[in-house]
Amino acid sequence: MQFFKIITLNEAMDQVMTIANTQGLESERVALLSSHGRVCSENVYSKVDIPSFDRSTVDGYAVKVKDLAGATDSIPAMLTLKGDSIMGEATCYVIESGQAMYVPTGGMLPEGADGMVMIEHTEKISEDMVLIYHPVAFGENIIYCGDDLKREQLILSHGKRVSAYDMGLLAGAGIGELSVYKKIRVAVLSTGDEIIDCNGPMNLGQIRDINGYSLAGAITALGGEVVFKDIVKDDMAALRESVNKALEMADVIILSGGSSVGTRDFTQRVIESFEGGKILVHGISIKPGKPTIVGRVQDKMIFGLPGHPTASALVFEVLVRPYMEKLSRHEAKAMEIVAKVTESVHSSPGRDTFIMVTLFKAQEGWMAKPILGKSGLISLMAGASGYIHIKSDQEGLYKEEEVVVTLFKRGEI
Amino acid sequence: MQFFKIITLNEAMDQVMTIANTQGLESERVALLSSHGRVCSENVYSKVDIPSFDRSTVDGYAVKVKDLAGATDSIPAMLTLKGDSIMGEATCYVIESGQAMYVPTGGMLPEGADGMVMIEHTEKISEDMVLIYHPVAFGENIIYCGDDLKREQLILSHGKRVSAYDMGLLAGAGIGELSVYKKIRVAVLSTGDEIIDCNGPMNLGQIRDINGYSLAGAITALGGEVVFKDIVKDDMAALRESVNKALEMADVIILSGGSSVGTRDFTQRVIESFEGGKILVHGISIKPGKPTIVGRVQDKMIFGLPGHPTASALVFEVLVRPYMEKLSRHEAKAMEIVAKVTESVHSSPGRDTFIMVTLFKAQEGWMAKPILGKSGLISLMAGASGYIHIKSDQEGLYKEEEVVVTLFKRGEI
Repeated sequence: MQFFKIITLNEAMDQVMTIANTQGLESERVALLSSHGRVCSENVYSKVDIPSFDRSTVDGYAVKVKDLAGATDSIPAMLTLKGDSIMGEATCYVIESGQAMYVPTGGMLPEGADGMVMIEHTEKISEDMVLIYHPVAFGENIIYCGDDLKREQLILSHGKRVSAYDMGLLAGAGIGELSVYKKIRVAVLSTGDEIIDCNGPMNLGQIRDINGYSLAGAITALGGEVVFKDIVKDDMAALRESVNKALEMADVIILSGGSSVGTRDFTQRVIESFEGGKILVHGISIKPGKPTIVGRVQDKMIFGLPGHPTASALVFEVLVRPYMEKLSRHEAKAMEIVAKVTESVHSSPGRDTFIMVTLFKAQEGWMAKPILGKSGLISLMAGASGYIHIKSDQEGLYKEEEVVVTLFKRGEI
Repeated sequence: MQFFKIITLNEAMDQVMTIANTQGLESERVALLSSHGRVCSENVYSKVDIPSFDRSTVDGYAVKVKDLAGATDSIPAMLTLKGDSIMGEATCYVIESGQAMYVPTGGMLPEGADGMVMIEHTEKISEDMVLIYHPVAFGENIIYCGDDLKREQLILSHGKRVSAYDMGLLAGAGIGELSVYKKIRVAVLSTGDEIIDCNGPMNLGQIRDINGYSLAGAITALGGEVVFKDIVKDDMAALRESVNKALEMADVIILSGGSSVGTRDFTQRVIESFEGGKILVHGISIKPGKPTIVGRVQDKMIFGLPGHPTASALVFEVLVRPYMEKLSRHEAKAMEIVAKVTESVHSSPGRDTFIMVTLFKAQEGWMAKPILGKSGLISLMAGASGYIHIKSDQEGLYKEEEVVVTLFKRGEI
C-alpha cells in the first residue's frame, strides 16, 4: 500500500499548473460574429490604419488654418467653396489658400486642409462663398489616418476572451474571422451508491445528483463544454468503465464523491489501473476539500473532488478553474470586493480555509455573510456570491473585520 | 413637419420601461443541463424535502443521546451494535436504548436515534459491541429531513438568471427541466453610405462596420440572439426594406448611425412609414447620445442609436440593455466599483454625461482613467471597464475625486 502526504494548496497548484503549461488545446477559426466570449489563440494585428484616411469629427468646413488667422464675428474670413466631401467616397479635391470645402462628421478631408471649422462658426453666403467667424488650431477637429490604430498594431492578445468592444475593434480593423481555442471538453462523473439523477422516482435513502449539475453550470460559465455526464455506483468496474468512456470523449475529467479514504474509495485505484495512470495529489490541506485527489491518465487530468456540495464547488473554484483557464491560456482576473464579515469565523490552524459568503449592501458598505451552519445547505449555497480565503497561518475572523471576497464571476477589469 | 422635444434620460427610460412592462417573451422548456444563464420564466418550488430523510454529517454511530450521559475516556458507554446503514437504501432498523448503529457521512439515520457520535470518539471492541468515550448533544451531527429545503419552498424566482449553484439546487430538488424565456431575437442594422462589412476590400473614404459587431457582442453577452445583421445605405427605400425584414424576424430592432438631424436622417421617416409606426423619443439630453431615436412599429421597439462607436455603445448600456432585461423580467444588478478618477473631467450642464473609463489598481485602490481625447478611439474603447455617470445637475469631476464606476459586466451579487 502506498501512503500519500497531504500537501498545501500552493503545492497542488504548482503541480497542476506546471502540467497545464505543457498541455494545450487545439484552435479553430470562427467568424467574428460568433466569437463573443471565446478565448483568442493568436495575437491579432490590425491589417489597416484606423481611420484609414484623415477624418473630420464635426460637420463643417475643411480649411487652411492660416487663412483664418484673426477671424472674428466682426471681421470674418471669406473663403471660396470647393464641392462637398461625399460620405464613403475618396475626396480628390485639393484645398488651396483661400478655399474651403464642406465635410460632414466622419467624412474624408481634402488634401491641403489642416483644420476643420464647425458649421456653427460659419455662414454660407452664396453657392460658392462662406464666411468664417472663428479661427481654428492646426489639426483641430481632425482625426488623422492611424490616430486610433496603426497598421500592424496588436489589437487582441493571445489568451484574451473576446469582448463586445473587441469585436467592434476587430471589425474596424478588417478582421472577419479569428483563431480561438476549442472549448474544453469536460466529463463530469458523480459517484456514490446513493446518488440518482434529477429526474425519475426517488427511494428513501437516495439523494439527487447536486454536484454534477453545479459543476456542469460552472464549466459552462467558464466557456467549457460538458460532453459526458454520468452517475456511477461505488463499484470499481463501473467506475473504470465510466472513466474509460470519459477519457475517449473529454479533455478533462471531474469526479465528485468517493474520494474520502475508506472502503469505497475507488478513484485512486481506477486512475492507477490505466496504463501510465498516476496519482499526483492525494489530500490537500484545505478546508473544506481535504480528500481531493488529482491524477493523470493518457495526458489527461482527472480531478477527484469531495462529494459534499460546498466542498466540491470550492475545490472546483480554487483548483480546477485555474487549471482550465491555464489550459486555454486565459489569465482571468478574479473579481474581488472588500466587505465586512457579519460574524466571527473560526479558521483551521495549518489549513487554508475557504468560506462561501453572501454579499449584501448595508449603509456602511458591502457586508459578507458567511454560509456556515450544518455543512452543505445547498439552499444557501445557491445564494453565495463568492468566498473568503483564510490563509493557513491566519487566525479566524472577527465580526466586522474587513475581508476580501473573491466573486464566483470572473471579470476583465 | 413635426418638432420633437429633447427629453431627459429618465423620461426616455420611463417611456421605454412602461412599454416593456406591457410586452413579454414566450417561454420554452429546457433541460436542466442546458439551463445555465437562461432567465427563469416561472417561480420554481421544490418537489421534495431536502434532505428527504434524517442524514448523518459524519462517519460514526447513531445513538440515543441519553445512553451517553457522563461517558468519558475512563468510563465509556458500552452499546450493542445493530447492523450498518447502507448508502442509498432505507434503514429499517429501530434503535432502542443501549443500542447503536454505524452510519457513514450522508447515510440515513435509523428510527429512534437522536444523535450521531463521530467514529473518532468510539472503539469497536467486537462484532456487536462498541465503546463510546464522549457524550453528544440532542441532534448533534444530524441534518434533519427538510432542514435544507422544505417541500413547496421557492427555490428559483421568476426573472432570475440560472447560475451554476441554482442548477445544483434544482437538481437536488428533483427539477429536471424548467421554463425559461426564449432568447430575445435582435436585428442589428448599421446605416451609412460609408459603412462596409469587416470582410472584403475597402476603398478610400469607407469605414468598417464597428457598431454592428460591438452591439452583436453586447447582445450575446446579455443572452440575446442576433437573428439579422445588415448594413444599409442612406437610402429611404433600402432602409425601409431592411427594417421590414427585421420586423419579421426579430423582437427588437437596433439601428446605429443615421440618427442625426440632417438630410440623411431616414430613421424617423422609415418608422413612421409603417402602419401604426410611432416615434416615442427623438433626442435625449445625454452626452454622448443626444440624437437617439426610439420608435415602435407593430408592438416592436426600434432603437436608433448614434453612429459614433462610443455613443452607440453607451446608449445601448443605459437605455437598450435595461429595456431588454425588463423584457425578460430579469432585474440584473449593475456591478459598481468605487474608484478615484485620474484626471479632471468636464460635464455638460443640463445633460447627463457618461464617460467610459479603464479601471486599474494602484496602491491606494481602484483608479478610473477616463477615455477622452478625440472622440471615438475604438482602440481605447476595447479596453474600457465601465462608465461614470455625471448627473445633469452635477459639476464636472476633480482629479482624484471618488466616483462610482458601473461595470459593463452584470453580476448577481
